[in-house]
Amino acid sequence: MRIEIICTGDEVLTGKIVNSNFSYMSQKLEDVGLSVVWGTTVGDDRERLLDAFRLAAGRADAVIVNGGLGPTVDDLSQEIAAKATSTELVLNREWLAKMEEFFTRRARVMPPNNVKQAMLPATAEVLDNPIGTACGFALDIGKAWFFFTPGVPRELRRMLEEQIIPRLLKKSGRAVTIHLKRFHSYGLGESHVDTLLAGIEEMVPDGSIKLGFRAHYPQLETKLVVRGADMDEVRRKLAPVEAEVQKRVGNFILAEDDQTLEGVVLAALASRAATLAVAESFTGGQVAARLAPLAGAEKVFRRGVVARDLTQMRAAVGLPADGAVATPETAVAVARALLGATGASHALVLLVDLDEGADRLELGGTIAIAIATGTDTVTRQARLLGGREWVRLGAVEMGLDCLRRYLQGLPVDEKIDFEKK
Amino acid sequence: MRIEIICTGDEVLTGKIVNSNFSYMSQKLEDVGLSVVWGTTVGDDRERLLDAFRLAAGRADAVIVNGGLGPTVDDLSQEIAAKATSTELVLNREWLAKMEEFFTRRARVMPPNNVKQAMLPATAEVLDNPIGTACGFALDIGKAWFFFTPGVPRELRRMLEEQIIPRLLKKSGRAVTIHLKRFHSYGLGESHVDTLLAGIEEMVPDGSIKLGFRAHYPQLETKLVVRGADMDEVRRKLAPVEAEVQKRVGNFILAEDDQTLEGVVLAALASRAATLAVAESFTGGQVAARLAPLAGAEKVFRRGVVARDLTQMRAAVGLPADGAVATPETAVAVARALLGATGASHALVLLVDLDEGADRLELGGTIAIAIATGTDTVTRQARLLGGREWVRLGAVEMGLDCLRRYLQGLPVDEKIDFEKK
Repeated sequence: MRIEIICTGDEVLTGKIVNSNFSYMSQKLEDVGLSVVWGTTVGDDRERLLDAFRLAAGRADAVIVNGGLGPTVDDLSQEIAAKATSTELVLNREWLAKMEEFFTRRARVMPPNNVKQAMLPATAEVLDNPIGTACGFALDIGKAWFFFTPGVPRELRRMLEEQIIPRLLKKSGRAVTIHLKRFHSYGLGESHVDTLLAGIEEMVPDGSIKLGFRAHYPQLETKLVVRGADMDEVRRKLAPVEAEVQKRVGNFILAEDDQTLEGVVLAALASRAATLAVAESFTGGQVAARLAPLAGAEKVFRRGVVARDLTQMRAAVGLPADGAVATPETAVAVARALLGATGASHALVLLVDLDEGADRLELGGTIAIAIATGTDTVTRQARLLGGREWVRLGAVEMGLDCLRRYLQGLPVDEKIDFEKK
Repeated sequence: MRIEIICTGDEVLTGKIVNSNFSYMSQKLEDVGLSVVWGTTVGDDRERLLDAFRLAAGRADAVIVNGGLGPTVDDLSQEIAAKATSTELVLNREWLAKMEEFFTRRARVMPPNNVKQAMLPATAEVLDNPIGTACGFALDIGKAWFFFTPGVPRELRRMLEEQIIPRLLKKSGRAVTIHLKRFHSYGLGESHVDTLLAGIEEMVPDGSIKLGFRAHYPQLETKLVVRGADMDEVRRKLAPVEAEVQKRVGNFILAEDDQTLEGVVLAALASRAATLAVAESFTGGQVAARLAPLAGAEKVFRRGVVARDLTQMRAAVGLPADGAVATPETAVAVARALLGATGASHALVLLVDLDEGADRLELGGTIAIAIATGTDTVTRQARLLGGREWVRLGAVEMGLDCLRRYLQGLPVDEKIDFEKK
């Protein structure tokens, strides 16, 4: 099935906003085994919109149009859809009633120009939007099935998942149940994990499991898309493959599906009624900022200390100035003092000794990490390269991942790909 | 001049990466008075690339193609450009020599498949890429002038600014000198600033000044694009308008051009040899993380304290537990103690009392800010709504902006648009 996406709106065309709706839609469709083959971006311009609709109608089986369903005069999607199908715009009374209720629930009166949002081409099928006033709709233009969606990301997302993808999957005649399994890892590059997982798709010989990746430094996302007649079949196919991924990528998997590294760390601490104190230097509060604002962290996150200078950091935890340098030994001393000063059950200390000089790709940092509890201490030392920002991002992730590993009883000092040997 | 952009590559088409190159190019062109009228995204597919080139050639005066200049087999731009112009690919010996030198400088041997990057259509004009091996080039397809650019963002950016925009401006016959002046503000919404600046474009009656905005919460960017025969004329036209913007938006302007809020704060502190300590609660280290990692901050940023719990925060600065709540008075007490504990000349304390319950759009937070020096104290109180993340972002910005205002001798408690009255 050839699918195209048309993104509309002057704000997207002129680059005022980055078009993340396109990548979101494209990825969601890929995740269920459907592929986008062409993308078009045009502004709020009648002639160009009509051209874009006609060109796509001549090439594609299905077209998703995003944006242009709002109440203002520059929202043109319904009008041009009607023109492209040589039909009239007709007031959809059901949608009008829904909108009026929407405003009533919010104790507001519907402005008259919102009526425009209920004017749909006569041949349109309504696509429900339970969280907004923009009415989605579907209709045929030429031989292609067009879906019109709102530009507001959360409205689009819900409509795509609940209304459009099920229709496309049904039409494509594929197995109806498609499941996406995701693994998040830190420390191994995409090609390394790809090599580790060689042959994994062939574990299910009918080709219904597809492996994919998405790298967003410092983390890598490994994706398995599984197709089956129903969820039971999907689970049966996925179980052995999932276990094999967990075995091969092993300790490097820090979270699965919607979990985050900081969420996993917080849950592990919370489950043992532990509390955490953090001290960090060049990362400047970024480790604390990943954990402290989370819901539930108010019971776990006890204190964060940020200091670029080690003497200041030592003073903050009650240690005397002694010309200490950023070594694992210093990190341990700060961690032990931090436990004493805060009463936390766990301390994480992350020190970075950044290279001197101007920012450049070869600029690196030497990382020293210590984790301490009342009875135990572990350390990790590493060297990262890639410039100030790259080192900072990598150090934050390494600090959090060391804590995750410690809490899960795994070795904290396994070498990673990004580390200078 | 009708300009189109064609973005190529499976990673962009399938949404593996968000296409920020498109918005970057489009915005840069807008900034110099040129407009993109159509955008196309296609994968690494010979037939679709050729279709995309031909369609754009039939519609546009100029076309920028992004991506597909790499050394691997799926990089097809040169091949399809040659096909679209019915020319042969010819080895460009100068570019080959440049690439060899590029590798030699890095003490590496050029892999044989890089030779492909020096194969250009016979009619192509080279567009220099001083920081990479991908050779840009320009040629005519039909009546349109095509520019082929690398997918690596920093290589693209440099080529666009140094090679492509000057050629397009020259061809468009417009005044050659175009200057972009930017103002960054916090606290006023786009429509509010638009109203404040009513009539500003008309101060230069020949229409050579254009006003624009870019909102990225919590900040707003106000842009003036000025055209003139040369930089002297641009400066003459801009000076009174610039002064008027500074007068009307006034204290809300936190930075100009490439400056950042945190950079302005750091520079103001450094210029008076001041040092800073920060204590924060729900923002979780995000204020510290904006300042502490900056180059030069090692001399200024003395200590950061993060605690979700006020008793912990008070303990961290040596104050007894007393059941304090997040008020300006508590913030002042913590700020004074922080000065004593750290020896810093300035203290910034940012407390957020977040509403109870699940995250929702109506969830808010009450902000209490104190800034203290050895001799002075100021406070600010506010209420922000919009959910956990929105409140957190707004609170961080408000804390930093209060410090900027204090250091610049401005009132810290001017009401902002995002604040619940």
